[in-house]
Amino acid sequence: MTDFRGADLLQQYIEKCTNWGRWGEDDQLGTLNFIGPEQVRAAAGLVEHGLTVSVSLPFNQSGPQTGSLRANPRNMMTATGADHLAGAQDILPAGFGPAKGYGRSDDILIVPNQAGTQWDSLSHIFWKGKMYNGRSAGLVSSAGAARNGIENYAGKLVMRGVFLDVAKHLGVPALEPGYAISADELEATAEAQGVEIRRGDALLIRTGFLEARRSAWGDYAGGASPGVSLHTAPWVHEKEIAAIASDTWGVEVRPNEIDCFQPFHVVALVHMGLAIGEIFDFAALAAACAEHDKYEFLFAAPVLPITGASGSPVGGIAVL
Amino acid sequence: MTDFRGADLLQQYIEKCTNWGRWGEDDQLGTLNFIGPEQVRAAAGLVEHGLTVSVSLPFNQSGPQTGSLRANPRNMMTATGADHLAGAQDILPAGFGPAKGYGRSDDILIVPNQAGTQWDSLSHIFWKGKMYNGRSAGLVSSAGAARNGIENYAGKLVMRGVFLDVAKHLGVPALEPGYAISADELEATAEAQGVEIRRGDALLIRTGFLEARRSAWGDYAGGASPGVSLHTAPWVHEKEIAAIASDTWGVEVRPNEIDCFQPFHVVALVHMGLAIGEIFDFAALAAACAEHDKYEFLFAAPVLPITGASGSPVGGIAVL
Amino acid sequence: MTDFRGADLLQQYIEKCTNWGRWGEDDQLGTLNFIGPEQVRAAAGLVEHGLTVSVSLPFNQSGPQTGSLRANPRNMMTATGADHLAGAQDILPAGFGPAKGYGRSDDILIVPNQAGTQWDSLSHIFWKGKMYNGRSAGLVSSAGAARNGIENYAGKLVMRGVFLDVAKHLGVPALEPGYAISADELEATAEAQGVEIRRGDALLIRTGFLEARRSAWGDYAGGASPGVSLHTAPWVHEKEIAAIASDTWGVEVRPNEIDCFQPFHVVALVHMGLAIGEIFDFAALAAACAEHDKYEFLFAAPVLPITGASGSPVGGIAVL
Amino acid sequence: MTDFRGADLLQQYIEKCTNWGRWGEDDQLGTLNFIGPEQVRAAAGLVEHGLTVSVSLPFNQSGPQTGSLRANPRNMMTATGADHLAGAQDILPAGFGPAKGYGRSDDILIVPNQAGTQWDSLSHIFWKGKMYNGRSAGLVSSAGAARNGIENYAGKLVMRGVFLDVAKHLGVPALEPGYAISADELEATAEAQGVEIRRGDALLIRTGFLEARRSAWGDYAGGASPGVSLHTAPWVHEKEIAAIASDTWGVEVRPNEIDCFQPFHVVALVHMGLAIGEIFDFAALAAACAEHDKYEFLFAAPVLPITGASGSPVGGIAVL
Repeated sequence: MTDFRGADLLQQYIEKCTNWGRWGEDDQLGTLNFIGPEQVRAAAGLVEHGLTVSVSLPFNQSGPQTGSLRANPRNMMTATGADHLAGAQDILPAGFGPAKGYGRSDDILIVPNQAGTQWDSLSHIFWKGKMYNGRSAGLVSSAGAARNGIENYAGKLVMRGVFLDVAKHLGVPALEPGYAISADELEATAEAQGVEIRRGDALLIRTGFLEARRSAWGDYAGGASPGVSLHTAPWVHEKEIAAIASDTWGVEVRPNEIDCFQPFHVVALVHMGLAIGEIFDFAALAAACAEHDKYEFLFAAPVLPITGASGSPVGGIAVL
Repeated sequence: MTDFRGADLLQQYIEKCTNWGRWGEDDQLGTLNFIGPEQVRAAAGLVEHGLTVSVSLPFNQSGPQTGSLRANPRNMMTATGADHLAGAQDILPAGFGPAKGYGRSDDILIVPNQAGTQWDSLSHIFWKGKMYNGRSAGLVSSAGAARNGIENYAGKLVMRGVFLDVAKHLGVPALEPGYAISADELEATAEAQGVEIRRGDALLIRTGFLEARRSAWGDYAGGASPGVSLHTAPWVHEKEIAAIASDTWGVEVRPNEIDCFQPFHVVALVHMGLAIGEIFDFAALAAACAEHDKYEFLFAAPVLPITGASGSPVGGIAVL
Repeated sequence: MTDFRGADLLQQYIEKCTNWGRWGEDDQLGTLNFIGPEQVRAAAGLVEHGLTVSVSLPFNQSGPQTGSLRANPRNMMTATGADHLAGAQDILPAGFGPAKGYGRSDDILIVPNQAGTQWDSLSHIFWKGKMYNGRSAGLVSSAGAARNGIENYAGKLVMRGVFLDVAKHLGVPALEPGYAISADELEATAEAQGVEIRRGDALLIRTGFLEARRSAWGDYAGGASPGVSLHTAPWVHEKEIAAIASDTWGVEVRPNEIDCFQPFHVVALVHMGLAIGEIFDFAALAAACAEHDKYEFLFAAPVLPITGASGSPVGGIAVL
Repeated sequence: MTDFRGADLLQQYIEKCTNWGRWGEDDQLGTLNFIGPEQVRAAAGLVEHGLTVSVSLPFNQSGPQTGSLRANPRNMMTATGADHLAGAQDILPAGFGPAKGYGRSDDILIVPNQAGTQWDSLSHIFWKGKMYNGRSAGLVSSAGAARNGIENYAGKLVMRGVFLDVAKHLGVPALEPGYAISADELEATAEAQGVEIRRGDALLIRTGFLEARRSAWGDYAGGASPGVSLHTAPWVHEKEIAAIASDTWGVEVRPNEIDCFQPFHVVALVHMGLAIGEIFDFAALAAACAEHDKYEFLFAAPVLPITGASGSPVGGIAVL
């Protein structure tokens, strides 16, 4: 494989930040191990206003995907109220007999797991033949991920959420494509918002980019984008962050800062085992946090335990 | 449409329990309106042990569906680690250039929304041409539900959960198919467990039936089943319950108690606007609640906001 | 429903061209009834060079669809040779035991039936609540078309094909968007090519538009396009044409010539019961016909008998 | 890899029958190379009665698949006549404006390529890391088959068909599961039917098994089955057969005759490059051939050119 500029740096970050073996050779949770009972209790204790805010984009054909890599979610009706009115449901399916006034709708969703608001699994990215915890990429076949699949996150992802509204802090509607957010800026944002970053946190990082592109996605999915700098990786590692979710396609800045595709993923997902969330919609959360001047909350964003999957679509909720 | 035994009773329950218009003619939330800030705060206050328990069945081909009405979820890999090892990812897709050591897995999920652990939307069931809040069934076409779709539940379904382990209370591993659970039994179960049922609660009702059928589903999906009696409907209404989820295919007892298909759904979903959850897996929760002798908790089970859908698969979590 | 310019003309064409009842009230074949044993024998008799030419576009993600109405076909691998090499197939699926050197690929195709080279069914289009042979549109529900579905074409569509290379006849690479081909031009093209149009023929009409857009589809699917004029309908009817296939999205010219969407479909598909084929790729056929100066041949383009479908993808072959 | 009984024999057959390199190292057609212009002309010359007979099973949910390995085809409506009647189509999709009386149905097919009547591609089976013509199995990744995919069959599969009604010849409605058809029996059947087997033929072999299982499939897909013996392979090779299609799940007898899964496929598909067709429905063809005492005909069964696919569903037609 070709060498590249920055290869040395990348290797240094990998060595500095790796969690392979940290929680045992069987571990498939990665940094979610930072969230223990104490963290969960503390997160629940943050609920003050009883206010619930969705951070998920609707799942439909109007999403950001262009079809070149992934398509938008498509929900197909297999039974409708129009059928019911037209008499096509007078006999129920599957031998259930005459309907006698009863009607139903039903549907099938086709969703690329990475198409909308989603968590990556620890089987989503490989580096030189390996995935998180040193496992072979060959464990991820057409039958799915035999290890590190998203089902390992079942029952997790209820935790303390810290909202870092970087766009607001920098006084812009949205960061520009190519803007790399530094660790110093994340710290400064937290400080300005009066919130402390702690072990086991989910950092929800708003660039404003989703809102800027919502009515005309353009190259939102895969093109130039603001995002966290590769150089935040050691800080994320030191802070023992459990999860980072952002309002961009890939969390990290693009174009990438070194000659490697998505190097933050290589360090953080493959080697740290960080839970990474993408295409979150923070518009309503930004308004709620500003209104209540409250940037920490209970964050509930459980995955669908899809066996062997590379990720899961998610309906995430902040409870202020 | 044919008349039927029990039609008068059904009509009485409908009239007694209807919430059409109760929260305004624009309402699409139904009984989730019972969950206000006070209820959310109280739910968060129940977290004591910081223990998170999944109540969702894995989403895969081993689920309970037989294909006659619905298929099990199928996750299909569109990029794998085996590809990465075989050199098939040496050039990244979508114009991203040479991989230089980087690899990825990706996948597409096909999931009938009602196939596994799921919430019904208020557009899922019709009665004589109408759905919740008096809207025409014709609003649900092949393009999806123009009203009452599951996206209306976005940001909701974080609430107080009360676990009613009826099977345990009755001293059986699982209730028998055809066993109708009465309101008295629900009350007795709560009392025996030392928990009070309150306005805005999610009642999680365990029959044990999913666990009994887990390794050999048989006719679990659509066949005879234990479940709540139609005659619990007035009690559910009076108690101002927000949601009922159970470990069966359809929450209510089957065969149905009157000559109407799924009459509890007709009263509770169509007319009360009750949030109904099905195919929940309560095995781990039963163990956790018994161990801690604690049957109330924070329950987080947010939907995917799938525009116009009849329901949503869900990754539900109880936080004890 | 709103009245519109051209409504009188449309109604005249409908009345003049309707075949409702012509082949009995049970008929679901429409103009394919024009193809009897004599026509099939004659078609086979046209084979001279033993040359077979494909007229189907490849089914893949590079097709003309944009996703706004339909997506391109997507084939997803569920077993691969990379899996086989990585050892992920050492145990065969479905209880078949150890592989011992055996490997397999497998896949699932998701294809909107109208996405690529395809035949429409007689349930594809409705006019004022009715479809072909006077049947109610209500017979086409989410469960599929109870009548007029594409499965009625099973075992059909082997016939005489007449290639009308209108673009070549007019001396242009491709007709311009908005160009309406008249019956006179179709006749003149046939005459110039030395071929006679007969009862039961499939007319394969080349505009060149697919070839012009192949490397940059733009609005090929649904935008302005050359195509047959509405005013050819009486001629098609009189000639007792069995099928018309073209290299455009919708066979007929767009923008439409009167204030009605796809009026040729309304007359020809709904009322005549004409078999209509779209998005055929005539590049190779144009070359072969020119080389051999032969514009009539055996045309084999059988449907997949998809029960209740609005159409079928097709692998069509001309045998010269 | 484990050795097995019959390994020596299998290796002998492979060496005797291999066509790797026979048509050049770039060949992706295999035995379809036996069909030249002469064969196509001769096939067309067989048309006598002008009778067209479908040999494809309907594509729907009632097919033979159980879901354990593959699901049956599912066609989902995305627009219906019921929608049209309910007013849900009053505005056309994709910006086409008001419908003014126009309506449409549309749909999306999900079909495992191997689920129903189908041709295998030469990328469908591997043996010890290789596929047809000595290519690496690693060329078949999640992105599809880079070589030997079913698109290579585009414009082919119009040929002489010889129907071998083995069940009829042996005087039984259907051969028993486990019954291995020998080359002698195939020859005897042809002789009894008065038909000669020639270079480039498609042999359509009827066991009667599909008809026996049509109303109750049981383990039709993958269970014990009649079929051709492994030991027919040298005869198939010597006769220069182009294609074999049968009315069973896998053409060859099951359980397999030696300790290797699908050994006929290993010899015939991987090494000879034979076109193999499965799950063909020969009920109507058996009746037609018997009625006309005619067992040779033009056989048109073109694939959908699905780029990189392991096979293709097919609408096959015999023209007598």
